[in-house]
Amino acid sequence: MNQHVELFRQEMEGFAPHQRQFLEIGRRAGRFPSAVARQGSERTDAEISVWCSNDYLGMGQHPSVLSAMKEAIDTYGAGSGGSRNIGGTNHNHVLLEKELAAFHGKEAGLLFSSGYTANDGALSVLAGRLPGTIVYSDALNHASIIDGLRHSGAQKRIFRHNDTAHLQELIAADPADRPKLIVLESVYSMSGDVAPLAEIADIAERYGASTFLDEVHAVGMYGPEGAGIAAREGIADRFTVIMGTLAKGFGTAGGYIAGPAALVDAVRAFSRSFIFTTSLPPATAAGALAAVRHLRSSEVERERLGANARLLHRLFDERGIPYISPMSHIVSAFVGDDARCREASALLLERHGIYVQAINAPSVREGEEILRIAPSATHTSQDVEKFADALDGIWQELDIPRTS
Amino acid sequence: MNQHVELFRQEMEGFAPHQRQFLEIGRRAGRFPSAVARQGSERTDAEISVWCSNDYLGMGQHPSVLSAMKEAIDTYGAGSGGSRNIGGTNHNHVLLEKELAAFHGKEAGLLFSSGYTANDGALSVLAGRLPGTIVYSDALNHASIIDGLRHSGAQKRIFRHNDTAHLQELIAADPADRPKLIVLESVYSMSGDVAPLAEIADIAERYGASTFLDEVHAVGMYGPEGAGIAAREGIADRFTVIMGTLAKGFGTAGGYIAGPAALVDAVRAFSRSFIFTTSLPPATAAGALAAVRHLRSSEVERERLGANARLLHRLFDERGIPYISPMSHIVSAFVGDDARCREASALLLERHGIYVQAINAPSVREGEEILRIAPSATHTSQDVEKFADALDGIWQELDIPRTS
Repeated sequence: MNQHVELFRQEMEGFAPHQRQFLEIGRRAGRFPSAVARQGSERTDAEISVWCSNDYLGMGQHPSVLSAMKEAIDTYGAGSGGSRNIGGTNHNHVLLEKELAAFHGKEAGLLFSSGYTANDGALSVLAGRLPGTIVYSDALNHASIIDGLRHSGAQKRIFRHNDTAHLQELIAADPADRPKLIVLESVYSMSGDVAPLAEIADIAERYGASTFLDEVHAVGMYGPEGAGIAAREGIADRFTVIMGTLAKGFGTAGGYIAGPAALVDAVRAFSRSFIFTTSLPPATAAGALAAVRHLRSSEVERERLGANARLLHRLFDERGIPYISPMSHIVSAFVGDDARCREASALLLERHGIYVQAINAPSVREGEEILRIAPSATHTSQDVEKFADALDGIWQELDIPRTS
Repeated sequence: MNQHVELFRQEMEGFAPHQRQFLEIGRRAGRFPSAVARQGSERTDAEISVWCSNDYLGMGQHPSVLSAMKEAIDTYGAGSGGSRNIGGTNHNHVLLEKELAAFHGKEAGLLFSSGYTANDGALSVLAGRLPGTIVYSDALNHASIIDGLRHSGAQKRIFRHNDTAHLQELIAADPADRPKLIVLESVYSMSGDVAPLAEIADIAERYGASTFLDEVHAVGMYGPEGAGIAAREGIADRFTVIMGTLAKGFGTAGGYIAGPAALVDAVRAFSRSFIFTTSLPPATAAGALAAVRHLRSSEVERERLGANARLLHRLFDERGIPYISPMSHIVSAFVGDDARCREASALLLERHGIYVQAINAPSVREGEEILRIAPSATHTSQDVEKFADALDGIWQELDIPRTS
């Protein structure tokens, strides 16, 4: 008897089926946010509207992105054929890294297969390579940041979410001669709130610390050319490394960092998740490059997303539907109960053909369950109004608390 | 002054430029192994022949793969728009996981963004989830396996490379009631030798251990339907989990595991590199699916690769060029010196337009530097002969030791 397998069988027996099944959706190029959904083998396809995609600007269906990808497939084929160091560096990787460095006003850029591996790989080097480094990490930082810092082995201090007084207190208590790195996000993925970037840059400069700013939910969406929140505030140059993704606002796949050449060189030379992996398919890099170039010169997608977010905030305010923060396009309606959160998501899908994933523990803490709603630049204002009305009915039916 | 950045500047100052520059190559769909190379900004494009690609079978340019990708782009767009659990599960992901499970004769399959994250994510759960698990890991296992096991926190024993007596000795010394997991590769990436799979399966069964078999350099290339070395030996059912990649023999991108439903469910539920990342672009999954389906029914690519590898072994034997193992298509010519290895690679490129990457520390140990040569199914036998002659000349010129 294989004991290891048997123990896993026992462990997984009590596991809820909803954690095994993912809603299968076919987003349709040219018709997004419309999609076709299928869950399990018995249900037939149903027409739905997606309200929880990270393709916030609809770039995943932009004609220039799709044609760049198809052209790269015709020219270079499907995969890259190797790691960046062994036969897998394509012209599109090089162009995209140059574009991203220029986009953020940094000396160099470096591509990863995903945002997860970018944070994991970059932070394990930037926090772990210099002996004695102390890291200051926001309490709500993403799992990929937590993993990268854990893998770095660096000494770590957690500051309360967006609490600059706490950060200041922690950093002031540490020896002046230790190298220091502050790690934070600009727009937080689950709460949708925005970090006090200028104050954090002040603290970093006061104590000679580097900063690593994750802008994955901001690049493409905010600031001049879509270069992010730090760029919107005019202080991108005060952050040492800016980390972003090509899989959300830019509608494709992959993660990246942009920063000083010495730091990017170190990550390129020592990051295991960068070195020991096949590089992105040339077509993915080509599509991402087209998306970045488009959004650097086009405002219309950002304007539409901003208008939809503001409308949704107003409609929720009018209806007393509580949401965590009005600071970004991530509108997290607060449910605060595991079962009702799942039920609300299920009812939205069944009755209204609206897909919003329930976010439960461990992605948020127990008792802080949310419907993480992401309007897209591709929704119309009528869509937003219908959505708010549908949610209002479900709030009523499930007796979910309203704002007082 | 930012001390953290300054220290990185100092650290990277003494760093050799070759570790900063990657050869930029444009593999050309339909003409592979031919490609266009560019290194640095001053050099002009040169026509080269690639001899170190992991696209061993040329599936990265197969018309059915390319058309499946382009069709998926037209239908579903560029990226998936989310993680698997939040809006990012496309029909092609589901179909591909079913196909891979059937391919390996396992209950379930699970896709990852890359082979690195598949090993890291799966092993951190399979080795780390059950308290008390002891892991037995081959000394030459890939960096991604090492990282997954390190991140699992499990107790680890390293057995000497392919040494079943050592494995037996280690496992016999441990308490019978501890859950056990043996982790190995079938074809080793740098040495090209093959593990004694039947003996390892015997040991696993004798001690009630699970096995995790990494077949990344074997899937597509060996066994009935290309299902790998374990399948070739008729013992795939004796391995608990088979791990593979879509980025080498299948010519696209992504990694996967196939195994018992309970183990795959556990990885799906707990693996952070699976949960907290955007899923593969639908087009990548569609291309990979087309490649797997093609290679399950076509022998011609495997036959060509095998014939090229055997021819290269014979030509090296005749010329006294030492190579590590004759057991697979990975033909690692042994140089054993850092500088001469780089020089051999540079001369091959300059004089003959042949691209073989020099493999130096840390990818191999110091003093064990190799030219890792991978003939492709797309090379002709004349190509192989010309290649052997070119290498022979460089062996002569650089006075690299021959077999005695």
